[in-house]
Amino acid sequence: MSTERISELLQGLGKAATAAAGTLALAPSAQKNAALAAAAAAIRARRDDILAANERDLAAARAVHMSGARLERLRLDAERVAAIATSVADVVALPDPIGTITAEWHRPNGLTIQRVVVPIGVIGIIYESRPNVTSDAGALCLKAGNAAILRGGSESRHSSSALHACLLAGLEAAGLPPAAIQLVPTTDRAAVGYMLSGMTEYLDCLVPRGGKSLVARVRQEARVPVIGHLEGNCHVYVDRDAELSMARAIALNAKMRRTGICGAAETLLVDRACVATHLAPLVRDLLEAGCEVRGDETVRAVDPRVRPASEDDWYTEYLDAIIAARVVDGVDEAIAHIARYGSAHTESIVTANQATAERFLRRVDSAVVLHNASTQFADGGEFGMGAEIGISTDRFHARGPVGVEQLTSYKYVVRGAGQVRP
Amino acid sequence: MSTERISELLQGLGKAATAAAGTLALAPSAQKNAALAAAAAAIRARRDDILAANERDLAAARAVHMSGARLERLRLDAERVAAIATSVADVVALPDPIGTITAEWHRPNGLTIQRVVVPIGVIGIIYESRPNVTSDAGALCLKAGNAAILRGGSESRHSSSALHACLLAGLEAAGLPPAAIQLVPTTDRAAVGYMLSGMTEYLDCLVPRGGKSLVARVRQEARVPVIGHLEGNCHVYVDRDAELSMARAIALNAKMRRTGICGAAETLLVDRACVATHLAPLVRDLLEAGCEVRGDETVRAVDPRVRPASEDDWYTEYLDAIIAARVVDGVDEAIAHIARYGSAHTESIVTANQATAERFLRRVDSAVVLHNASTQFADGGEFGMGAEIGISTDRFHARGPVGVEQLTSYKYVVRGAGQVRP
Repeated sequence: MSTERISELLQGLGKAATAAAGTLALAPSAQKNAALAAAAAAIRARRDDILAANERDLAAARAVHMSGARLERLRLDAERVAAIATSVADVVALPDPIGTITAEWHRPNGLTIQRVVVPIGVIGIIYESRPNVTSDAGALCLKAGNAAILRGGSESRHSSSALHACLLAGLEAAGLPPAAIQLVPTTDRAAVGYMLSGMTEYLDCLVPRGGKSLVARVRQEARVPVIGHLEGNCHVYVDRDAELSMARAIALNAKMRRTGICGAAETLLVDRACVATHLAPLVRDLLEAGCEVRGDETVRAVDPRVRPASEDDWYTEYLDAIIAARVVDGVDEAIAHIARYGSAHTESIVTANQATAERFLRRVDSAVVLHNASTQFADGGEFGMGAEIGISTDRFHARGPVGVEQLTSYKYVVRGAGQVRP
Repeated sequence: MSTERISELLQGLGKAATAAAGTLALAPSAQKNAALAAAAAAIRARRDDILAANERDLAAARAVHMSGARLERLRLDAERVAAIATSVADVVALPDPIGTITAEWHRPNGLTIQRVVVPIGVIGIIYESRPNVTSDAGALCLKAGNAAILRGGSESRHSSSALHACLLAGLEAAGLPPAAIQLVPTTDRAAVGYMLSGMTEYLDCLVPRGGKSLVARVRQEARVPVIGHLEGNCHVYVDRDAELSMARAIALNAKMRRTGICGAAETLLVDRACVATHLAPLVRDLLEAGCEVRGDETVRAVDPRVRPASEDDWYTEYLDAIIAARVVDGVDEAIAHIARYGSAHTESIVTANQATAERFLRRVDSAVVLHNASTQFADGGEFGMGAEIGISTDRFHARGPVGVEQLTSYKYVVRGAGQVRP
């Protein structure tokens, strides 16, 4: 597609999204919820169409020998479609933040000031081949009154289109403009570049969802604010005062429950003061669960299967059944290790010592810090926030799980009786 | 200065700022307040040094024939130095947001989750020739636990250095690291470019304070999040149900109290239904106060001194004694005019009709919307937020006046009893 055609196409989407955002910002909760409920119903009703579309994507993917893991992420079945519908329907039950008064005060001159939650506006979402992002991101943006411009991976284009058609059916049923949720109707890669730099007039923010290279590219090239995380190099620190059985359960769960999610632990830190009692069981649990362990000298002494860790390992987000492990001199060295090598995503301390725990929770500068709980709880659903559009490792606007509440802005409403400024 | 030298210099500032930010994030309120109080005292004690430094800046400015308005912004006198000290001292009394728990909830699995306010980290401030920005921005960043890297205009370099020395004295007196507030020690313009794109590793956000071209450049080139406003094209809408005396007072104050601030009104919209009674007095008040009025045909019919308005006038932020004026068909046309031409900064409606007011307040999508009050109240001090670092017209992170509370982020603290994720 020519550059001019891409530009024309995306400018058109941008204009339509801006107009739709104006309508969405004023749409009552009931209308947005009606659209979500109707979209969920449409997903259920059109299950066979969605699966047929997915089959076209899978056939194309197999033809180019897509890897098993990627193919698995792309694949839908009846159960997955049902889960996608449920996930959209669940957004209905979330509180609508728009219009909430988050602060209200009175000035000595008689002015009253309210801070009122409003939508961000138009949100662009750039994602790879998970078809469910189409409906999840569309639903969350809609609930928070934002117009969405979705740009999915080319491998999932038929699946995404089929799901998008259901979202459109929901919008239509509720009398909301179809441009509230638009799917970029081209898989031309130039469209991504244009969203990053050519649409500053229309896009209020961009959300990349995908691998590190996608997120890094969006961060590097985007000319509008970005919500996204680069990595989750998460740590579990087992303190001298950790109860051993709890430490074992948390370390194993944090690493191995699901290794491919951003809240999975990537490094295990063990206090030197409990090496004699705690280290061997922790390491053996992991090895026996099929995890490769890369350790410092002390860790390697535990078991011959432990491989040597290099400096690089402390920086690495494996997203796989691999963990780096080392011994540290107490909580302060653990905090220092995390500050140096971590990605400020999620870290957990296991200890029965309250003071040590509070020191860790206060001093570790990550989006989520946990005491005596698995890092795998770093998740919007587990936080009770409902669906999320991702976990932010930014410190700006939104940090941690990004749900409906984080997809909003605010304005100040000031009421007076004729006040002029002296 | 060579590119290598700029890079080395600013990387050094960045590293030092990051280390200082770690200390500041944990500094108790009393320590930060002690630094602010000592800095204010130092500004008072060193008044003559500051004035002497300012005289050097003024002499250099006169030598290059700087314009009167810019010279006036650069000029300090005893009274202005006293005001600068007071402004720093006032930050002591503001609440310290850091550590505040803004939300707390319990999950069915027994986890308790808190959202806790933390600093943003390292903030870069790029500003033009107002020396007071050095102390104001430094003080606000310090209160919110952020390290600041200040890059002031070359014209005010001696004044800024003298004020910065007072901030350093305050930090030292309180036992805080000097790198908590650093002044870029070169006026080489390449340093600005380096801050915009070369310091992503160190800067968590950038705040441009200055004219449109500076802010536009920062927005265009910055590789980190930006807090700043481009323009305040503010509107006053006088509705058919406006009390005439109130409308006259508000329109005159909104435009003429101070014409050079971003909250000054730039366009007056008058409801066609009250043209016969309201238009002439509104326009004559402005003309008699020395304001140039550029109007549509109806407005020009009021007085021969009214000049014709062009399409460009509706877009223009004059920051001067000029106002564009036109007649609109009621509140909805006023809202549409603001949506089309406005900059989403601050708009006011004057009306005695509550329903009309609420329609305007809800539908106008600006950082600050007012009913029966002057647009010149768009100000952190007037909002009771204390000093501000600017007014944001962004919808991301912070909107409206940016004070201490807006210079923060948050993290989630999760406390458990051994929970693992099923």
